[in-house]
Amino acid sequence: MENFVYGKNNVIELLQNNSRNINKIIIMKGLKDNSKLNEIIKTAKERKIVFQFLPKEKFTQFKEYSHQGVIAYVSPVKYVKLEEFLNKNKKNKKVIITDGVEDPHNLGSIIRTAVCAGFDAIIFPSRHNALINSTVEKSSAGAVNHIDLIMVNSLSSTVTKLKDNDFWIIATDIKAEDNYYDIDYRNMNFAIVLGSEQEGISSVILKNADFRIKIPILNKFDSLNVANAASIVIYESVKQTIQKSDNVV
Amino acid sequence: MENFVYGKNNVIELLQNNSRNINKIIIMKGLKDNSKLNEIIKTAKERKIVFQFLPKEKFTQFKEYSHQGVIAYVSPVKYVKLEEFLNKNKKNKKVIITDGVEDPHNLGSIIRTAVCAGFDAIIFPSRHNALINSTVEKSSAGAVNHIDLIMVNSLSSTVTKLKDNDFWIIATDIKAEDNYYDIDYRNMNFAIVLGSEQEGISSVILKNADFRIKIPILNKFDSLNVANAASIVIYESVKQTIQKSDNVV
Repeated sequence: MENFVYGKNNVIELLQNNSRNINKIIIMKGLKDNSKLNEIIKTAKERKIVFQFLPKEKFTQFKEYSHQGVIAYVSPVKYVKLEEFLNKNKKNKKVIITDGVEDPHNLGSIIRTAVCAGFDAIIFPSRHNALINSTVEKSSAGAVNHIDLIMVNSLSSTVTKLKDNDFWIIATDIKAEDNYYDIDYRNMNFAIVLGSEQEGISSVILKNADFRIKIPILNKFDSLNVANAASIVIYESVKQTIQKSDNVV
Repeated sequence: MENFVYGKNNVIELLQNNSRNINKIIIMKGLKDNSKLNEIIKTAKERKIVFQFLPKEKFTQFKEYSHQGVIAYVSPVKYVKLEEFLNKNKKNKKVIITDGVEDPHNLGSIIRTAVCAGFDAIIFPSRHNALINSTVEKSSAGAVNHIDLIMVNSLSSTVTKLKDNDFWIIATDIKAEDNYYDIDYRNMNFAIVLGSEQEGISSVILKNADFRIKIPILNKFDSLNVANAASIVIYESVKQTIQKSDNVV
């Protein structure tokens, strides 16, 4: 885990969120004043966070990141243990499992949608999957600070443990018979499993899933991006939940 | 428009698709053999497309692109005129309009989902929006070759023209009252308008829209990525269409 957050919007989100220690903010000398920069400086002052104006050369090490001249050094993201998450007293927990999502932009984007949809956790394996780095954090627009991040060594035993704890496992699989809207996401704990961009979900996970669902493709061109596929399924569950509540009210 | 396509998967898609002239494919010398590379070479031979093995240095000009050592020089993407599209004899045309989507990855990703969902066209303005360049093409996974691409000078007059041609204009707007699943997407021509990541949809377009819809957010964290938001709305329309057909059959 690289311990920095880059880009104006992300640093603002970080300052507002308050869940991470910010050790220092560095700002490029000669950056044009604008409302976002002013907000960063104002909030940093209020929160007594050290900030420094540094010459352009000091940013060379970050040249691969679109940092817009603003970088915050932070404590690492906090991970949550699976057991800790399972012990939380909450009904109808909603989880995303990524099984081999290697592109950090996709992982960040999935986390962002999951947070907007009120999901509780993201579970991802420590190998063959992107980890939570600065690129993921940026792509998530800071959403990594709003959800339980659970890194596990074995997805397979994690799935077993989830099932033992009354979770239903929903695997997205291009070869599934059911469409994603054919199942009822309400009144249960569930985990939606997303596979790798190239290979899909590993066979052992697929075998242990309670449901297999696909997103119908209305074209010969069959290639949804995994983050977009995630959004479609995640929001079907949101929609069902809201419509149910509407009926109740 | 930069006239090249980069990356193995994208070049394979391009070779399969056959809708663009490929002038030449260049492959980095010393690239490890693998099935994708072999497929590219085999297909290029079959289709009598010139390919060359060039030393690494020749790829320096493409260093900003994750080209994986494979680049195809192609004819520009073909644009379609709005009138031409409107004159096509098809029922229930489905269109995406991007009003200020400036990130080429997002634009590419939106086009990819639209193609999977069987949409007919993407309309985008020639200013204040990403144009179809190599990054868009790559992010679309080649989907730009499977849909009508319509570039217009004025979105506002385009919206008027669409309405004159029996299109319903559906604007996504964070302040809308209706949710995206509250409207019926079936049995009509419609255009879903997506706004810029920062500003949303311009007010003149919003004013002229027939429907305004939002995606409900179940968290204080209110920040869906525009490509993910697009996927959610696009697939609600797909779902309604499929479910309707199911009922009819």
